[in-house]
Amino acid sequence: MNSQLIVDMTCPIPFTTSETVLLGHGSGGKLSTDLMRDVFMPALGNPVLARLNDQAVVQVGDSKIAMSTDSFVIKPLFFPGGDIGSLAVHGTVNDLAVGGARPLFLSTAFLIEEGFSMDSLRRVVASMRRAADESGVTIITGDTKVVEKGKGDGLFINTTGIGMVRRGIELSADRARPGDVILLSGSIGEHGIAILAQREGLEFESGIESDSAPLHGLCAEILWASTQIRCMRDLTRGGLSSAANEIATQSNVGIELYEGAIPVREEVRGACEMLGLDPLYVANEGKLIAIVAPDVAEDVLRAMRNHPRGLQAAIIGRVTDSLPGLVTMKTSLGTVRIVDMLAGDQLPRIC
Amino acid sequence: MNSQLIVDMTCPIPFTTSETVLLGHGSGGKLSTDLMRDVFMPALGNPVLARLNDQAVVQVGDSKIAMSTDSFVIKPLFFPGGDIGSLAVHGTVNDLAVGGARPLFLSTAFLIEEGFSMDSLRRVVASMRRAADESGVTIITGDTKVVEKGKGDGLFINTTGIGMVRRGIELSADRARPGDVILLSGSIGEHGIAILAQREGLEFESGIESDSAPLHGLCAEILWASTQIRCMRDLTRGGLSSAANEIATQSNVGIELYEGAIPVREEVRGACEMLGLDPLYVANEGKLIAIVAPDVAEDVLRAMRNHPRGLQAAIIGRVTDSLPGLVTMKTSLGTVRIVDMLAGDQLPRIC
Repeated sequence: MNSQLIVDMTCPIPFTTSETVLLGHGSGGKLSTDLMRDVFMPALGNPVLARLNDQAVVQVGDSKIAMSTDSFVIKPLFFPGGDIGSLAVHGTVNDLAVGGARPLFLSTAFLIEEGFSMDSLRRVVASMRRAADESGVTIITGDTKVVEKGKGDGLFINTTGIGMVRRGIELSADRARPGDVILLSGSIGEHGIAILAQREGLEFESGIESDSAPLHGLCAEILWASTQIRCMRDLTRGGLSSAANEIATQSNVGIELYEGAIPVREEVRGACEMLGLDPLYVANEGKLIAIVAPDVAEDVLRAMRNHPRGLQAAIIGRVTDSLPGLVTMKTSLGTVRIVDMLAGDQLPRIC
Repeated sequence: MNSQLIVDMTCPIPFTTSETVLLGHGSGGKLSTDLMRDVFMPALGNPVLARLNDQAVVQVGDSKIAMSTDSFVIKPLFFPGGDIGSLAVHGTVNDLAVGGARPLFLSTAFLIEEGFSMDSLRRVVASMRRAADESGVTIITGDTKVVEKGKGDGLFINTTGIGMVRRGIELSADRARPGDVILLSGSIGEHGIAILAQREGLEFESGIESDSAPLHGLCAEILWASTQIRCMRDLTRGGLSSAANEIATQSNVGIELYEGAIPVREEVRGACEMLGLDPLYVANEGKLIAIVAPDVAEDVLRAMRNHPRGLQAAIIGRVTDSLPGLVTMKTSLGTVRIVDMLAGDQLPRIC
């Protein structure tokens, strides 16, 4: 049992009382939320930003446009199943797609440390192009900055994307309602474990690859299957637990997960046990959850399973009206435990 | 006289034969162009990116949307006349505005080094908000990543913006035609000199402040004054010389500048002489050039001078059909010299 899971229940003091920025402020967990609430929101606050979705949706002319930005600082730059270039495309494409948008255009900004290998740069750019083609997006504008040796770490990439939100679609983390069903598109934890294994030089019996992949097609299938999708989230930094906690908080509902229903590959489970990690907190880059009205859950599940990125889709929980703001999990042993948000940073620089 | 100005005429070999990335690849000068041509374009090439404007214009639904991205790595973070936060807003707002778009929405991505002061972060975010309000844009989505101490340099910020291009407006660096007139909105070199002075601890008799400011209002006035605007450029990295060279290359025309007509403040001229810099190459963050048809030049000039950001606007040159691709300058002595693009990096991390 991971004691991290309960420690914060007794610690309601905001972590941003810290006078400096900590690694955990970039974790996507509780410290990130604190930073957003205590620093960014008070200064920048506006109704769109306040929805705290991974993408903003605004009206431009006659169209509803989604916009999303992400910087990628992953280490190492090349890993089993991808590299910083493909990841930077998938990450932003997925943030747009789970917002109900058809991803259309990306910008990219390269922040390079002096002395970085030109060959590696070429590899990364080629990989971005392949990922963009596969995702149906075009990279239309860019920027390059170079900082002195020792003032960066090889390569950081920002991508920002825009997409068009389909008519009539309104997805948001504050739309979950008691009774709704939670669907997961596939097995969790592969990206984080692949990175960690590569970084630490660990060898697992069967190599674990990152699940980094574009989810625009799967999202389109889900939205096609029903008009009663409340929200979708891809499970990146902070994993399934962060996504579920954010929805529970923003919708002010309880979320109950069924441990036995959550697919985790045997190798990932083994690696997590060895490393003392909980797969619920490990990052994914090609998995999502969808919260849907109860009477369409089976239809949506079928649609997901018909898509190559959703073959292992499963119903993994439900939205409740008890314990609003909290995520709980019915364990395989029949007990219930609280799945709190990650406090600090389980795995820095995972994306 | 600065010998840098002619050295490259004898050196046609691309600099990206370098096996590693050099500081100069981020300069906005010749090395940046090489990197774009040799690394980014071959992999990512598409008609929009190929126009090499500072913003991309694409059709989304019924609207023409401009998109622009920039990362800011300026050092120091706080300087006379602004800070990295206001600069990050002005920079992207201006790239949209000179593309003929009304800037609407920004995303922002913070890349923070562990241990960065929370107070400084608050100051920067507050400054961004003020700059956004002044620029008429809303920051609608964001991202924060934190890297370990020693793997960054305090704070880097990316902003990406979208705006709507006014109907009937088509501006591009490849639209300049012989006979066109070149207008400059005001005195050059202030941003670069202010940063350099601050960085090197230099004191000038009258303090020089960065000219960092939003240009959306001035651009709107220019576009209102005439439908015959060919293109506009803000004069950031690489200064007036880079902007003029890019237009000369992309339009395949000659550009002739009149030295005596280019406003340079006395303190800036003095500082440049002391530091061995040519103001033509020094960055600005609140100045632009507009290339316009000859018969509307006076109207546009009047419109610019009526705007607070264009009080010192002047006609500083013309487009010719001799020496296509080259920028020349008629000096105050009556001689003509070539104004080549900056080869390396005159002032690293100026924005």
